[in-house]
Amino acid sequence: MDVLVPFAAVEPKTRLSTVLEGDERAAFARAMLADVCEAVADAGATPTVLSTAPIESPHAVVVDDRQLTAAVDARLEPPAAVVMADLPLATPAALGRLFEADADVVLAPGIGGGTNAIVSRDPAFHVDYHGASIRDHRRNARAVDASLETVDSFRLAVDVDEPADLAEVLLHGGGRAREWLEDAGFAVRETDGRVVARRD
Amino acid sequence: MDVLVPFAAVEPKTRLSTVLEGDERAAFARAMLADVCEAVADAGATPTVLSTAPIESPHAVVVDDRQLTAAVDARLEPPAAVVMADLPLATPAALGRLFEADADVVLAPGIGGGTNAIVSRDPAFHVDYHGASIRDHRRNARAVDASLETVDSFRLAVDVDEPADLAEVLLHGGGRAREWLEDAGFAVRETDGRVVARRD
Repeated sequence: MDVLVPFAAVEPKTRLSTVLEGDERAAFARAMLADVCEAVADAGATPTVLSTAPIESPHAVVVDDRQLTAAVDARLEPPAAVVMADLPLATPAALGRLFEADADVVLAPGIGGGTNAIVSRDPAFHVDYHGASIRDHRRNARAVDASLETVDSFRLAVDVDEPADLAEVLLHGGGRAREWLEDAGFAVRETDGRVVARRD
Repeated sequence: MDVLVPFAAVEPKTRLSTVLEGDERAAFARAMLADVCEAVADAGATPTVLSTAPIESPHAVVVDDRQLTAAVDARLEPPAAVVMADLPLATPAALGRLFEADADVVLAPGIGGGTNAIVSRDPAFHVDYHGASIRDHRRNARAVDASLETVDSFRLAVDVDEPADLAEVLLHGGGRAREWLEDAGFAVRETDGRVVARRD
């Protein structure tokens, strides 16, 4: 399975700016990208980084500075998959469930309405990453009479966009992204509600 | 499989107080409880509501006003499960994966370090719902040499505690909880980041 891994190379992860400096966000985003590409490869698939600017990577890289939807749609040649670069909890097992699900379109929802991973086996299916994209992707699949399956995975649902998400990496991650956070001094702290990741 | 469903009957869901009045929180919490118990029963298991105060329910109810950990630990007689009452995305399929996982202790993590569901087949295993409970439960399982499996499920990971979680119910729920929110006027609204649930 060919897998596109879209990556925002310039000023990534701006919603983490309250807890990470610009160069830290860049390094952390690269650590997550490396984890995701490795998990994809370990699941027996072939990752290609679809980057908004040239980057160094042990994996294939194609550069397209357009918006996410246009860049992905231009290169998604079914059968193929799209897996976001900010899923540091993704494991080969979770990705295997995605790749092996038997439908024309397979979706893995993200927290907050996003679509964190897609398999498309139907050339008529198009992506649309704006807003509550999981609803749009369901609709787009139905509109072209594609069979649809949803992968129920916490590991694929957790994309790291906001400070609260860093706790998930510390609790459930195992790769470079977790190591980067620990090296940067982050640890899990308890609160009255959900735990958070903080550094002193 | 016998399944305890712990339910806070008095002043439930206080972290939703910025968006729901007290009587609304009570009604919404009951809708979620009904959804969870029905999903448990549809998965072929037998739910017992473990409530902090007497409530009406079509399912068995036992009352224990102690803290969650003490109340659950007193009644968890392996093989048995604990499934939280605020998981309105839980489906029979997701719960089936939990119940059928082959280990002495099976854990379903919640967002933010919680443990949303547990299967225990080892009488030596004890629960501890304080703080980052997923870590404590892993540790407790290891401490008694119980085999451990983790169920990777978005539907079991989403517990509804905070206003942001309501969007997940509207996007992915299918039962009374979603209907209750829609009847109360909530709808999905797009933002610069994750979508939210709002009423006008």
